[in-house]
Amino acid sequence: MSRADTIPRDREDDYSPEQAARRRDFVEAKTGARLDTIARFAIDPQVTRGNIENFIGAVQMPLGLAGPLRIVGEHAQGDFYVPLATTEGTLVASYSRGMRVVSESGGVRTTVVKHSMQRAPVFLFGNALEAREFGQWLKDEFAAIKAAAETTTRSGKLIDIEQYPVANMLYTRFCYTTGDAAGQNMTGKATFVACEWIKTHHPGKPDYILSGAIDTDKKHSAMNLIQTRGKRVIAEFTLKREIASRLLRIDTADLYRYRQIAAVGALQAGAAYSGAHSANGIAALFIATGQDEANVAESHAGITYGQLLENGDYYWSVTLPALICATYGGGTGLPTQRECLEMLGCYGQGKADKFAEIVAAVVLAGDVSLTSAVLAGDWVTSHEALGRNR
Amino acid sequence: MSRADTIPRDREDDYSPEQAARRRDFVEAKTGARLDTIARFAIDPQVTRGNIENFIGAVQMPLGLAGPLRIVGEHAQGDFYVPLATTEGTLVASYSRGMRVVSESGGVRTTVVKHSMQRAPVFLFGNALEAREFGQWLKDEFAAIKAAAETTTRSGKLIDIEQYPVANMLYTRFCYTTGDAAGQNMTGKATFVACEWIKTHHPGKPDYILSGAIDTDKKHSAMNLIQTRGKRVIAEFTLKREIASRLLRIDTADLYRYRQIAAVGALQAGAAYSGAHSANGIAALFIATGQDEANVAESHAGITYGQLLENGDYYWSVTLPALICATYGGGTGLPTQRECLEMLGCYGQGKADKFAEIVAAVVLAGDVSLTSAVLAGDWVTSHEALGRNR
Amino acid sequence: MSRADTIPRDREDDYSPEQAARRRDFVEAKTGARLDTIARFAIDPQVTRGNIENFIGAVQMPLGLAGPLRIVGEHAQGDFYVPLATTEGTLVASYSRGMRVVSESGGVRTTVVKHSMQRAPVFLFGNALEAREFGQWLKDEFAAIKAAAETTTRSGKLIDIEQYPVANMLYTRFCYTTGDAAGQNMTGKATFVACEWIKTHHPGKPDYILSGAIDTDKKHSAMNLIQTRGKRVIAEFTLKREIASRLLRIDTADLYRYRQIAAVGALQAGAAYSGAHSANGIAALFIATGQDEANVAESHAGITYGQLLENGDYYWSVTLPALICATYGGGTGLPTQRECLEMLGCYGQGKADKFAEIVAAVVLAGDVSLTSAVLAGDWVTSHEALGRNR
Amino acid sequence: MSRADTIPRDREDDYSPEQAARRRDFVEAKTGARLDTIARFAIDPQVTRGNIENFIGAVQMPLGLAGPLRIVGEHAQGDFYVPLATTEGTLVASYSRGMRVVSESGGVRTTVVKHSMQRAPVFLFGNALEAREFGQWLKDEFAAIKAAAETTTRSGKLIDIEQYPVANMLYTRFCYTTGDAAGQNMTGKATFVACEWIKTHHPGKPDYILSGAIDTDKKHSAMNLIQTRGKRVIAEFTLKREIASRLLRIDTADLYRYRQIAAVGALQAGAAYSGAHSANGIAALFIATGQDEANVAESHAGITYGQLLENGDYYWSVTLPALICATYGGGTGLPTQRECLEMLGCYGQGKADKFAEIVAAVVLAGDVSLTSAVLAGDWVTSHEALGRNR
Repeated sequence: MSRADTIPRDREDDYSPEQAARRRDFVEAKTGARLDTIARFAIDPQVTRGNIENFIGAVQMPLGLAGPLRIVGEHAQGDFYVPLATTEGTLVASYSRGMRVVSESGGVRTTVVKHSMQRAPVFLFGNALEAREFGQWLKDEFAAIKAAAETTTRSGKLIDIEQYPVANMLYTRFCYTTGDAAGQNMTGKATFVACEWIKTHHPGKPDYILSGAIDTDKKHSAMNLIQTRGKRVIAEFTLKREIASRLLRIDTADLYRYRQIAAVGALQAGAAYSGAHSANGIAALFIATGQDEANVAESHAGITYGQLLENGDYYWSVTLPALICATYGGGTGLPTQRECLEMLGCYGQGKADKFAEIVAAVVLAGDVSLTSAVLAGDWVTSHEALGRNR
Repeated sequence: MSRADTIPRDREDDYSPEQAARRRDFVEAKTGARLDTIARFAIDPQVTRGNIENFIGAVQMPLGLAGPLRIVGEHAQGDFYVPLATTEGTLVASYSRGMRVVSESGGVRTTVVKHSMQRAPVFLFGNALEAREFGQWLKDEFAAIKAAAETTTRSGKLIDIEQYPVANMLYTRFCYTTGDAAGQNMTGKATFVACEWIKTHHPGKPDYILSGAIDTDKKHSAMNLIQTRGKRVIAEFTLKREIASRLLRIDTADLYRYRQIAAVGALQAGAAYSGAHSANGIAALFIATGQDEANVAESHAGITYGQLLENGDYYWSVTLPALICATYGGGTGLPTQRECLEMLGCYGQGKADKFAEIVAAVVLAGDVSLTSAVLAGDWVTSHEALGRNR
Repeated sequence: MSRADTIPRDREDDYSPEQAARRRDFVEAKTGARLDTIARFAIDPQVTRGNIENFIGAVQMPLGLAGPLRIVGEHAQGDFYVPLATTEGTLVASYSRGMRVVSESGGVRTTVVKHSMQRAPVFLFGNALEAREFGQWLKDEFAAIKAAAETTTRSGKLIDIEQYPVANMLYTRFCYTTGDAAGQNMTGKATFVACEWIKTHHPGKPDYILSGAIDTDKKHSAMNLIQTRGKRVIAEFTLKREIASRLLRIDTADLYRYRQIAAVGALQAGAAYSGAHSANGIAALFIATGQDEANVAESHAGITYGQLLENGDYYWSVTLPALICATYGGGTGLPTQRECLEMLGCYGQGKADKFAEIVAAVVLAGDVSLTSAVLAGDWVTSHEALGRNR
Repeated sequence: MSRADTIPRDREDDYSPEQAARRRDFVEAKTGARLDTIARFAIDPQVTRGNIENFIGAVQMPLGLAGPLRIVGEHAQGDFYVPLATTEGTLVASYSRGMRVVSESGGVRTTVVKHSMQRAPVFLFGNALEAREFGQWLKDEFAAIKAAAETTTRSGKLIDIEQYPVANMLYTRFCYTTGDAAGQNMTGKATFVACEWIKTHHPGKPDYILSGAIDTDKKHSAMNLIQTRGKRVIAEFTLKREIASRLLRIDTADLYRYRQIAAVGALQAGAAYSGAHSANGIAALFIATGQDEANVAESHAGITYGQLLENGDYYWSVTLPALICATYGGGTGLPTQRECLEMLGCYGQGKADKFAEIVAAVVLAGDVSLTSAVLAGDWVTSHEALGRNR
């Protein structure tokens, strides 16, 4: 069995346009594909250093504009025009419809209620008692461990070390606030240094592995729902009965009834999200703004809660317990992505909570539209009209 | 409270370059952002009809090439060069490393073991007994319901109607095979027609809602893990002990031990995926190939299973129970996305299972690399070298 | 380290009163405890053969009488007086209060909607493809496998073999109806014989293990909630607004609102039951009637669903997806247990569905009482009055 | 529809033998059942005050003796003879077999690693921001709230108020240590007083409901697994390869392999316990010792973890995160139950951790036996020999 040819790399400068072209030529020769449009990118390959390896060009994802979306948040205030990158027909139209409804109802109130990003080392012992005693030592030495962790970062702050003992091990979660970065790398590095400090200073020199898998990085989990990962954000608004009838062709009493039915469905199915489709808006906004797109896995989790008010209006909220996003670092500085952040006034430092509020407001608007379409019977017909059904 | 200005639309032709420019001008005026690179797209706006509304341009996501990845599947056979669209530094390098390991070990064996895409209407009754009797009627009339559903589609086939009675309701899942399409719209339409047929033909004319929320569309769920959504795909290979030592600097016995520890972590955390990071590879490959990026929410779910063999080699597999992907329809026909599919020999009809096998193989390769890095202690240092840590 | 003395056993007749006394003497000598009341049992030790080993006497659990409980079921019809064995003060009083409410509201409607008891062998293969092909063979040979399984039992019927492929294994669930027995032993034996038949007749002679752990015997699971274990039973009634006010001192509108709040709590917590306290009634009734008390683990799972009707009345239901109970075999024939079953008209053959309906009705009544107490603020004070608070 | 007759009650003294007889006569007349053995109880009815209402007699559950079980714990040390109340044939024999194995291997090491019993009030606000600010106030006022809560109890200590914000609500868990009591009533009362203090002292006079359902009282939950409910206890021992072969007829390498297979099964099924059958031992021991039998629902949750050591021995542990038990209060003082506790040296104050250690050791022993029987193929045949298969 012969080995297939390896992809060309250039040890001197692997991010030159020529090197990208060389790889495209290679893969065209190997596969017969023609990479014409992939080659027509508007990014200087050199700026992708740190974002990608073996660069060959760019994928172009259509960008649509939704809004205006009125937000009455702590950090996000005003009317926003929201860039959504997607290939799913009707998505932008549907979110826009929801944005109109929430805006006419007075806008979405948004609140970031908790910050906590983790690495989760597991420490290994001879028996459970040693693990428990180590747990006590961790509490006693928290200040020193925090100091060690924070030598590696300006913006990251170690706020807690959660402990989950199992068998002869102590699973931990080192929880941080991470400023405007999503913080996975920052917390990885800080926790590594903290663990090395621990290994040096604890008399038992305990073995550890940097992930015991309960950070649940890039995965949905019950842990995320309960303990938060990234940011826990809540968006809420009150849907006026008159607006529901006029714009959505539904009655709020039916909506409330459907909430019960869908909640039972979500519970029975063990669904990560009890509303309609958080992942659609999150994915489209994440791609547009240079977020780590894999974090849709965690970020789409959430809880919808509604209440029919005495006057017939309907209080509607979504709580996103594991929203992971950044306005600095990662892909946020790439040209198109940065422009999308700038459309939202969210590029750079001091903007992460504002951005998180916008994401939550977008999710709520999208749920308003889709939920109502399901109820009103518009769902299939709107996809017929706008979607790509061949 | 005045209403914000609405986004310009053109009833005649909303997909012209001029109309896109008009919207860019509008949002630039509103927000102060400059949309230079968003405007430099290589897509004819007209072809995005059916993929997006309110088109303003494109987001450009860097594309890297990983591989070669040897696959010994039913449908995917040979050495593949895999396009990954991401902004997360080290991702392509890490997956490439894993691909080298699995390829040198003889390649990844891949198998699609089940197809099932759903819509999940809920039927409403006066009491549980009526709902149960309706359930029996559904079984008796399956052939006719299937015929009604299939009038709407050439490639979709209704294979089962699962029943989950709760209270005075019958939650159902209408399960289909969907050919090369992901099938969410196809099954929505078919199920709508089936439900209308039911409503006409059942003596009780039962009320229904087209989604009782147990399709768990765009959400992870226990239901998906148990009952499959989209495709259930398994990738497996045997890591030779010598290769683990030489390429990954780990011993397979340690790897096996770590599997226990991570499995306990995943169980305790209630994680949707018990391996390392399925979402990374899936998201990057989905974006590159025009899949619905929100389906990362469902598709990242899975189970890792390993076994240390008597000779010291290590059997390693991932099972993805809810992989949703297409080689036809949706975003697959967009220019850059189609080129990416063509690199894999996966564009068009008859290719969906092949593509699903490639996705599973990529996930396995990525897990090999990251898991080993965590174990070997390379994890933080490789991110330092390749990632964007400022 | 010397070995402790072993418990006396008599190979000739280990179930004589003398042998029980010998063991009591032994343990009194070893521990200093005095086993006076344990020795005062009303059971002929000989009849406990098949129920227990190393018999030393009996535990006496106080038995209270709750009711009358009006049930309008398929199998249970009339007013029932329900024996509850418990040591938790207020439990019988609280259930009785709920029974009065549901009875005055016209009684509880009960429906058994599904029967399915399982053993879950896992079959082991070289790779996933072999496992998938074996799965097809299982379908093709179902009639013969069913015949083999049913050679071992008169009342058990193999109705389905569910398949859950993971890695190079096929996890299965052999699903049975089991007549009036709970059926764990019956299905164990039948499945063992079926597996041996399979091993003999399948060309690959596949290795198997009789439990791959997805029967989830004696454990709550999402699988149980989705797929049913034992019986899936639904109890429902309509709480009149006037009765709620008069007997429970709550308004149905508040009750409905609290349902939303508790449902969100249950979802967030990942709770096995979304109502108030199914386990209390189930445990007390199971102990009284000779059920396997460990099955509280599975049987307490369930879903509460409520709906405020237009006239202000409140539709209230519980769905128990994994109720495991018997009116024949196990502990049902022991003297006090049998008397309890006879109080309900549920001893012996042809009574299992009737008994299941009673259990579900009891659970619903208990939830009515406790939920209302929490809402009305009675909860703590009633425990003060009736409970053992020293 | 006429109302059924109510159960006789005596306002003067409802706990007299005569009153119990009167109720038995009543139910015999109503149902035709004969309550001969229920009437032959060894408990003074007067002592059941606080444990039951509408007393009519006692259920007698057969009691078997298992052991000796060697425990090397912090609190439980020595060889124990364990009373198990059950009606499931083979249970006592199987647990005894496991106890022999763990004892010959040097005994079970047991460790209580966390105490936390909860009530979980939910506080209701106008919006999420108010709820968040209230959360900060709760932290600031913790000392005063703690003082208020602890006015109601000598042994209960408020150790934490966990916060889980959703929508416009703050779900909380008031976490206590509860001494030798299980603590559900104690924490209910203390939390009620604390909430009333809060309502009086917080400027917003927030509405609250005493249970927002995330205490998950009498229910299994992911919350319990993650955050602990009652006691978190770990039992561990090392199974010598020679003993496994001699007493269990299995090889430890096969055992380790089966652990992987069962862990995958548990994960896929979403099972509350990843070992064999914790609920059996817990239920039998709980009934024997006067625990609240409904707490099997929570207490059976847990995680099994094993590791094959280099010498071929097998480290085996169970972690029970939600063990709820008491040696004081509840049913522990009833005559037979107290004798059972005394057999274990666990009656009265200062014994709860010792008892918890014994429970965990029993669970481990039971898993050793059943797991090995499944592997060795003994499972069905032993039930044939000892069980009640008619």
